[in-house]
Amino acid sequence: MTRTVHTFSLFILLSFLILHSSSTLAHSEKLNEKNPCKRLVLYYHDIRFNGTNASNATSAATANHTKLGKFDHGMLVVFDDPMTTDNHLLSPAVARAQGFYFYDMKTTYNAWFSYTLIFNSSEYKGTLNVMGADMMGEETRDLSVVGGTGDFFMARGIATFRTDAVQGDYYFRLQMDIKLYECY
Amino acid sequence: MTRTVHTFSLFILLSFLILHSSSTLAHSEKLNEKNPCKRLVLYYHDIRFNGTNASNATSAATANHTKLGKFDHGMLVVFDDPMTTDNHLLSPAVARAQGFYFYDMKTTYNAWFSYTLIFNSSEYKGTLNVMGADMMGEETRDLSVVGGTGDFFMARGIATFRTDAVQGDYYFRLQMDIKLYECY
Amino acid sequence: MTRTVHTFSLFILLSFLILHSSSTLAHSEKLNEKNPCKRLVLYYHDIRFNGTNASNATSAATANHTKLGKFDHGMLVVFDDPMTTDNHLLSPAVARAQGFYFYDMKTTYNAWFSYTLIFNSSEYKGTLNVMGADMMGEETRDLSVVGGTGDFFMARGIATFRTDAVQGDYYFRLQMDIKLYECY
Repeated sequence: MTRTVHTFSLFILLSFLILHSSSTLAHSEKLNEKNPCKRLVLYYHDIRFNGTNASNATSAATANHTKLGKFDHGMLVVFDDPMTTDNHLLSPAVARAQGFYFYDMKTTYNAWFSYTLIFNSSEYKGTLNVMGADMMGEETRDLSVVGGTGDFFMARGIATFRTDAVQGDYYFRLQMDIKLYECY
Repeated sequence: MTRTVHTFSLFILLSFLILHSSSTLAHSEKLNEKNPCKRLVLYYHDIRFNGTNASNATSAATANHTKLGKFDHGMLVVFDDPMTTDNHLLSPAVARAQGFYFYDMKTTYNAWFSYTLIFNSSEYKGTLNVMGADMMGEETRDLSVVGGTGDFFMARGIATFRTDAVQGDYYFRLQMDIKLYECY
Repeated sequence: MTRTVHTFSLFILLSFLILHSSSTLAHSEKLNEKNPCKRLVLYYHDIRFNGTNASNATSAATANHTKLGKFDHGMLVVFDDPMTTDNHLLSPAVARAQGFYFYDMKTTYNAWFSYTLIFNSSEYKGTLNVMGADMMGEETRDLSVVGGTGDFFMARGIATFRTDAVQGDYYFRLQMDIKLYECY
């Protein structure tokens, strides 16, 4: 009987210890900033309509800038832009980015995005939904991946933007480094 | 003593086995695509303002389409639309959908939505926030339920759209099949 | 042998009991509406551009109201507004709120917001992304915090709005009580 009780106490003690460490591990395992459960690095190409480039353009401003400042505050652009795996505009699109951005500051260029990445390839079928501030003055800036569907069912994560190129007034390219921390 | 050690080893081994299977079970139990923790099938009715139907209209375009393509690219519609449990416009509204959509493609009709479902009935009080692409060419398309409040505190899930009817230029109806996978 | 078997059975039984209670505890601990893992009460100041106040204004309407009703339905405002810890406009900003709101009802004033709170202080660096309906007729209304970055990595929660002041047509102040329930 003594022996049983002894074993039993050990069991209780260890159960709690193991459960505790297990839940701590699960927590850090699930959401370690350096350890996404999936990562995709893609390039976003925005060719904005200028009145004459309709064959190439994939976005257009639907609301003009306001008169607050000189940095296009309020200009709202709706896009259906290609996403490629390298930074060449003419590479095959592996996804589309559909959504909008607008400029929101009076003292500098600064943008805000909300969009859906739509994958329909042999590799992935599904969507990721993204929103957040694009603080264009920063080298990199983080937006939130707030949900996903299909192969990205219920995903969440971070999309890190980096400006890769700006050519004239109507083309720019962003690197989007998409790190998912919740994968199902 | 031998017996205790034996029991003890068994205990350690089984603890890990059980903990492992338990965490796997919890994972799949929580987020099984076929097994939402809550499901609501509702119908969304959009009557867009055409200049003369103000008494019936519940939405209006606040930005006109751009000149990119012939599919209303850039038209931005703000809505406060009724949600019903069947597909009759005049059925009692069990919720309101408040938000916006816009068309975003130059080669076909395709939309993007972001909105809040507001419930204020005896059955539910609270909100669900939804965003995502409405690929109108698909039979069904999945958007993300990215948050909730009140009875839907911290909920997440998927809203599956299906076009139920299109009548003329100013009325359409969507079935929204809302499946929550995180309920608290 | 009998004793070992006895201990072993107890072990199995208790393992399941403890595991079960543990997962239940974890669940309620993580998401108890009264017990956020972080809370921030901030004040949002919106000074809308009226054509002559460019030096003070931090927002402007980029789409005018539609003709549906008399409550500015469809007016879309893009903002980069200061957030302060008390309700004085001239207090130091501890964050910026960048995003947009629009009015969406024909029968009363009612708004919808989507924005990013940007923190760049000694206390916090990072962002929170928020969206939801601002039912202005309610004393308080809950929006969703759908994601975060930096110090708010992967956060989720609720932002409760309360109208704190309305002065004329171009200034209003909201108290935003931000409660996070997922912190990492």
